[in-house]
Amino acid sequence: MSEDMSKFAMQVEYLGAGFSGWQRQDGQPTIQEALELAIQSLQEQPAAVTGAGRTDSGVHATGQVCHAELEKNWDPGKLRDAVNHHLKPNPIAVLKAARVDDSFHARFSAIERRYLYRIISRKAPLTLEKPVAWQIRHRLDAGRMREAARFLIGNHDFTTFRSSMCQAKSPVKTLDALDIAARPIPCGEEYRLEVRARSFLHNQVRSLAGTLERVGAGSWKPADVKAALEAKDRSACGPVAPPHGLCLEKVSYPEDPFGE
Amino acid sequence: MSEDMSKFAMQVEYLGAGFSGWQRQDGQPTIQEALELAIQSLQEQPAAVTGAGRTDSGVHATGQVCHAELEKNWDPGKLRDAVNHHLKPNPIAVLKAARVDDSFHARFSAIERRYLYRIISRKAPLTLEKPVAWQIRHRLDAGRMREAARFLIGNHDFTTFRSSMCQAKSPVKTLDALDIAARPIPCGEEYRLEVRARSFLHNQVRSLAGTLERVGAGSWKPADVKAALEAKDRSACGPVAPPHGLCLEKVSYPEDPFGE
Repeated sequence: MSEDMSKFAMQVEYLGAGFSGWQRQDGQPTIQEALELAIQSLQEQPAAVTGAGRTDSGVHATGQVCHAELEKNWDPGKLRDAVNHHLKPNPIAVLKAARVDDSFHARFSAIERRYLYRIISRKAPLTLEKPVAWQIRHRLDAGRMREAARFLIGNHDFTTFRSSMCQAKSPVKTLDALDIAARPIPCGEEYRLEVRARSFLHNQVRSLAGTLERVGAGSWKPADVKAALEAKDRSACGPVAPPHGLCLEKVSYPEDPFGE
Repeated sequence: MSEDMSKFAMQVEYLGAGFSGWQRQDGQPTIQEALELAIQSLQEQPAAVTGAGRTDSGVHATGQVCHAELEKNWDPGKLRDAVNHHLKPNPIAVLKAARVDDSFHARFSAIERRYLYRIISRKAPLTLEKPVAWQIRHRLDAGRMREAARFLIGNHDFTTFRSSMCQAKSPVKTLDALDIAARPIPCGEEYRLEVRARSFLHNQVRSLAGTLERVGAGSWKPADVKAALEAKDRSACGPVAPPHGLCLEKVSYPEDPFGE
């Protein structure tokens, strides 16, 4: 980084609908591009924005973290407001900005990512929550899902649960937590799957969520998930859950870049 | 009602954005019209749908109740699914349907309406919650708002807090509850105003919410609300809060038409 540049971290929230995911792609609207264009409106040169998690098309975030090297040493609150001004009318908002050390890297410095997958079971179509939850019409057995989840927690070869397009060198990851909460809602039930790991494979959370849904619905046994994991074979995976139920909630670093 | 007709009550949820409110108006999309058109697809004759609350343009509902006289004595679950099928792709859903007595009237039999008004205070624009909450950038003092709310609870002439277009014969209403909850959210605070009354005047909840916001922000004293109420003058009202923060949550009857 050149000496007269200032490195900033930003916490970013977005509604994934209408975007082809985080990562810049020619001719497609992406979150990364929207942020880069907003920053470009603030200074002479374009700036590259690097995110902690390359969320898929349609996936949301409330706690994405990114970094960028800027020409000016901004007051963090003014930077947040200026970027948000230029992000309009995109459903993307910078929640926090903070000056960080040159050594900070949104992706490589991260020690944990937390995702939430929301499933709502009810007979009537969703209206208010349609953009942010996967709707099913049948009830799930959360106890069965938790039983299956136990096979997935820990250090495993997750070949079964990653996209065939996944570019990670190794399919081995450590899943720190996979918690399943169920709560009654008017005319139905909501299931919230919270997963935490240092890092994830491409489509891993949606592959796990879609497979656990099958267990909760009764068409898979918990032990079938163990067998699928051990098969280390993509074709052994259950259906991949749709993107709009998924949200990147938090990225953690050894030291909180936003100083909290 | 003719003898071969069957009267049904339905609980309806909708996202108010994009609709000119509940009540049918020529040339404008309304919730009532969407429901009537959906029912018309199910039988030979058009059916009139009567709602408990004539929500304004942009106002949401999770617990609107309406009734309609149908040609057929439907199985309630089948009716719900059939109407929902024909409501697509509108963000409107029938949550429950139930056969009711001829004496049931969604509007006149109701003994209580409950509305929720959501205010989110944070510096960054809203993304995921933008459609369903009023965003402000400053903090509110919920204690001051509760102090002001005490002047509003009970039986009063609410002329100050009703639209000049209000068609109610009397401006006298009894406000049974006006509860204000505040909770921290990431990077901000959320305030939830819950109001309950047998019935409301046109724009009453939004007039109360907008005025209480001024009290919470410090530009009105709690006693100013008492003076405004006693003025019985529309021009004494504070700003009317925007519609998208408001949601009709529940309509109650002497006997629950959905049998719960």
